[in-house]
Amino acid sequence: MDGITTVGIDMYALAERLFPICRSITGEGVRRSLRILREYLPLEVREVPSGTPVFDWEVPREWNVRQAWIKGPDGKKIVDFQENNLHLLGYSLPVRRRLSLSELKAHLYSLPEQPEVIPYRTSYYQENWGFCLPHRQLESLPEGEYEVLVDSSLEAGSLAYGEYYLPGETEAEVLFSAHICHPSLANDNLSGISLLTFLARELQKAARRYSYRFLFIPGTIGAICWLARNEEKTRLIRHGLVASLLGDPGGFTYKRSRQGNAWIDRAAEHVLKHQGVPCQVIDFTPYGYDERQFCSPGFNLPVGSLTRSPYGSFPEYHTSADNLSFIRPECLGESFDVYRKIIQVLEGNAVYRNLNPRCEPQLGKRGLYDAIGGASDAKARQLALLWVLNLSDGNHSLLDIAERSGYPFGLIQEVSGLLVEAGLLVKVEDV
Amino acid sequence: MDGITTVGIDMYALAERLFPICRSITGEGVRRSLRILREYLPLEVREVPSGTPVFDWEVPREWNVRQAWIKGPDGKKIVDFQENNLHLLGYSLPVRRRLSLSELKAHLYSLPEQPEVIPYRTSYYQENWGFCLPHRQLESLPEGEYEVLVDSSLEAGSLAYGEYYLPGETEAEVLFSAHICHPSLANDNLSGISLLTFLARELQKAARRYSYRFLFIPGTIGAICWLARNEEKTRLIRHGLVASLLGDPGGFTYKRSRQGNAWIDRAAEHVLKHQGVPCQVIDFTPYGYDERQFCSPGFNLPVGSLTRSPYGSFPEYHTSADNLSFIRPECLGESFDVYRKIIQVLEGNAVYRNLNPRCEPQLGKRGLYDAIGGASDAKARQLALLWVLNLSDGNHSLLDIAERSGYPFGLIQEVSGLLVEAGLLVKVEDV
Amino acid sequence: MDGITTVGIDMYALAERLFPICRSITGEGVRRSLRILREYLPLEVREVPSGTPVFDWEVPREWNVRQAWIKGPDGKKIVDFQENNLHLLGYSLPVRRRLSLSELKAHLYSLPEQPEVIPYRTSYYQENWGFCLPHRQLESLPEGEYEVLVDSSLEAGSLAYGEYYLPGETEAEVLFSAHICHPSLANDNLSGISLLTFLARELQKAARRYSYRFLFIPGTIGAICWLARNEEKTRLIRHGLVASLLGDPGGFTYKRSRQGNAWIDRAAEHVLKHQGVPCQVIDFTPYGYDERQFCSPGFNLPVGSLTRSPYGSFPEYHTSADNLSFIRPECLGESFDVYRKIIQVLEGNAVYRNLNPRCEPQLGKRGLYDAIGGASDAKARQLALLWVLNLSDGNHSLLDIAERSGYPFGLIQEVSGLLVEAGLLVKVEDV
Repeated sequence: MDGITTVGIDMYALAERLFPICRSITGEGVRRSLRILREYLPLEVREVPSGTPVFDWEVPREWNVRQAWIKGPDGKKIVDFQENNLHLLGYSLPVRRRLSLSELKAHLYSLPEQPEVIPYRTSYYQENWGFCLPHRQLESLPEGEYEVLVDSSLEAGSLAYGEYYLPGETEAEVLFSAHICHPSLANDNLSGISLLTFLARELQKAARRYSYRFLFIPGTIGAICWLARNEEKTRLIRHGLVASLLGDPGGFTYKRSRQGNAWIDRAAEHVLKHQGVPCQVIDFTPYGYDERQFCSPGFNLPVGSLTRSPYGSFPEYHTSADNLSFIRPECLGESFDVYRKIIQVLEGNAVYRNLNPRCEPQLGKRGLYDAIGGASDAKARQLALLWVLNLSDGNHSLLDIAERSGYPFGLIQEVSGLLVEAGLLVKVEDV
Repeated sequence: MDGITTVGIDMYALAERLFPICRSITGEGVRRSLRILREYLPLEVREVPSGTPVFDWEVPREWNVRQAWIKGPDGKKIVDFQENNLHLLGYSLPVRRRLSLSELKAHLYSLPEQPEVIPYRTSYYQENWGFCLPHRQLESLPEGEYEVLVDSSLEAGSLAYGEYYLPGETEAEVLFSAHICHPSLANDNLSGISLLTFLARELQKAARRYSYRFLFIPGTIGAICWLARNEEKTRLIRHGLVASLLGDPGGFTYKRSRQGNAWIDRAAEHVLKHQGVPCQVIDFTPYGYDERQFCSPGFNLPVGSLTRSPYGSFPEYHTSADNLSFIRPECLGESFDVYRKIIQVLEGNAVYRNLNPRCEPQLGKRGLYDAIGGASDAKARQLALLWVLNLSDGNHSLLDIAERSGYPFGLIQEVSGLLVEAGLLVKVEDV
Repeated sequence: MDGITTVGIDMYALAERLFPICRSITGEGVRRSLRILREYLPLEVREVPSGTPVFDWEVPREWNVRQAWIKGPDGKKIVDFQENNLHLLGYSLPVRRRLSLSELKAHLYSLPEQPEVIPYRTSYYQENWGFCLPHRQLESLPEGEYEVLVDSSLEAGSLAYGEYYLPGETEAEVLFSAHICHPSLANDNLSGISLLTFLARELQKAARRYSYRFLFIPGTIGAICWLARNEEKTRLIRHGLVASLLGDPGGFTYKRSRQGNAWIDRAAEHVLKHQGVPCQVIDFTPYGYDERQFCSPGFNLPVGSLTRSPYGSFPEYHTSADNLSFIRPECLGESFDVYRKIIQVLEGNAVYRNLNPRCEPQLGKRGLYDAIGGASDAKARQLALLWVLNLSDGNHSLLDIAERSGYPFGLIQEVSGLLVEAGLLVKVEDV
């Protein structure tokens, strides 16, 4: 069992622990989830009081649910929050009422085109209550009087999020962010939460040029809170990724930052191209996850989004079918591997200078070149050596060279090391 | 019946009135045509005397025709200018001669590959006379003595053209030009003349940021006359289109200005892309209509050419088959609609600034966003709102945003208005 | 028989004379070859003593071979350098030994996937000896005692190369280089040697804006020698081509210079595009022939490589099948034609200015335009005239105009000449 498989299994196990918890943009479910993450990482839990102004927004009241159900005309529970927290419209106000089927239906949400699944719906900023259920069940509800209970509270409290800062050699930062506001949905976003948790653990063990910041935040309002409270710090962010949808078996999707050609964009595209799996790279759009906030024009940070299947593109998305059987350890592990390789590029990218720039140096006398000439099947390593020598004129970084040569960054980096050892190359600057 | 259909019918009716007149680069036919246009628009008729030097050229003598025919060996008219003014080679010198068939044939023009139609031919700058006729007729001419009459005059006079200037809020101009020198050819260019006439009438009624200039000019020499007499004014021209071939059922062809990426080029390409009809956009070439002069290197004006089927690409081109049955009211109307939308882009394009650039503003509290979250089918209008907010950083115009988002300019413009009303956006400058 | 065919036959005849000689990076074979070339061109033969330091390298000892063979267990010669000089591993040390089959096999080279041919192999910089032979023969060798003789010398001497400098109106240079170190291989590189020889003879007869330098040098070490001894002169090199693999019937391959968009890159791509034969244009890679040295980062010269089938892409490459029956006079002639046309572009490229930039000049009155208007099949020559007038604004060279218009450089150059004669155009500067 290789390292990738192992970490995938560990990631999956963490997702299993987090899955049952009812999370939202505020409330105890988020805190319980963060406490679990603290078993893995010494992250800080921040609390932002309800009512705090954050740019154009205000931190909402805190929402908590004790129980919620619908009883049918026969008095039996037909929909129960205890069974699946997706049944309750997120941020439902407390209610206890008897009402007719038609009155009830105004508060029911289903997916006619996917009649077997419970949809995930919320109403954070408009007061409402409601239940979500399979369309097939909704269709079969008999006439009669129903009883509804939402035993929730929506009160002054605070919004909690987790933050883990791992200092490196420099203050320059790489930002990773995962939204933590979704209830029992596995791919969206226990996959992202697990991946960042284990990525942080991996980075703890490594030498780090960059400092790393991991955010486990409620979507939208959490990102806005963090940005409002850390506006000054954003100038240190050199690269960033929003992590989500990383456990399904689909191909990868990298969505570029608003800048479009930032180093993170090039690094992610390069790694995916060489990963040998289906992938697509798409341009920034101002819709999606928290890259919307990080890439708002007043910040315009070099933050992309790296998922497998993109949001809204698969039938399980935002339904009860996005459960633990939809994500797979091996997919989580592969996603982890891609993130790790992107970090390798960011950490390792640098500009070198060929100390022998006029004509090629004689590689053979240094043991860097095959002795028998004439054969035309020069090896990748030899060609990579020649590429590094040819382009290391002070204007090309290793990633530039990897892109232009078509070789993976790892090989370019490795042969650069050999050339430095041989005294033929010197590092000019980190990128 | 919608507005587009109505204007198409009106445009067709104007083309019908103009069709029988024998126009050329000079002569009474042009003046008669301009008098008809004056019933629709208060255009100025300018006269430039023969012999006036205009750049490298000189205004030619004025050509008028009273009658022209060929009589066969039996004394009967076999070709008659009265029946179709295309029969006479444009600018034919006066002649009255008897001559053999072979002598006659040196002055006859036909199209062997289209034996049923009369070709359109001219000889403006080399003295000559001639007749054009269907190849089938030419082939069947018997041996014998023919009589030829061209009762024309080629004398000092003047070149007439029409000009209509419609002032707007600023002196910055949009130039529209149609050539008016072709005899009984419907698509080329009664379609262009009609379209500009009705476009001017439409613009009279509208608020206008730009001033508009409409030229109804003989091809080449007319454009050269206008440019020579208005050299100073050309610095005010911000955008321009040469209008022709706008009544046939073919797809649209936009030919870029010599600049290649002027606003008119982008506006035309954008509108055509969203029009939902077949279209092509081609690069500038120094051949075609009067864009040749407007885009000569000494002027290099941002003037493109927008036709349906391009010149020379359809068999009816420059033949008697380009008649009133070749053009259609609905095609004229659709062309009008495209021109009008391009003007909408030019008039409406501006740079706005997001007043809340750090993170997204809370659209929900302003009624600009759906209340129920979770559904992944965000509406075009909501996405357009997000695009405008995201890119309105002072560096992107509405057309930039429309191009990058893939939404039509009209929608981008509309949501920009909503955002201005909501106090979230402010106009920085017109483009 | 046209000129191209004639020169192809002459080129082939020269290749025939050079074919039997055993060349290497040093030795008498190179000098004999250069003496033959001196019958065609007054080239200088330079000698660089063994041990001379040249950048990171050192000129190797001189290698000469008197005889070399393997005798089988029965005492008969089974492999003989006299029969084919490819049999001997290049730079084999002297040896006379009796040895078993398995000891012998450690010194034998063959191509299992091409069992009938002798491969070409060398060991310039690691002391070794060996023989090359068809794999089928190697497989059939019986057990027993073999006798091996390599009667070679590897001693202080010198490296010889040929250089021919043809001065032109200016000191600015065009560099042509062919490697001369391969033994009996026809396409690689008697084709390149022959082509440059006859190209130089052609250029001797022509007016030349540029000076031309032709190098006949051993691959790699020869280029390094020349660059080390002529470092100052390289600043005069404006364009260059490495010539090789020019006699096979494959399509052309132009490999761009490291600069990627140098004039030579554009000229070569333009000529090939209009040659009407299969061709490909590929980006620079730091592997191949002596463009590796000319394009090393400390020189970064505008030197591309123009071959037919690229190195390593055809089965005959570096084997005994690359013989005189693999190359063809008509292919050599066609390659010559392409090189000549590229020179025509380099020599003729210039920026002109339209003296009548506002509107088109009246071409008709100067006899440069068809008299009868209306026909839509304007001729290439007329369109080319219009392109030159339109783009000659001081910012476009003739090659720019050829590229943008799609017409071949020759036509653009020809009509420019007509316009200069007509007083409509003036040359601003050579490019």
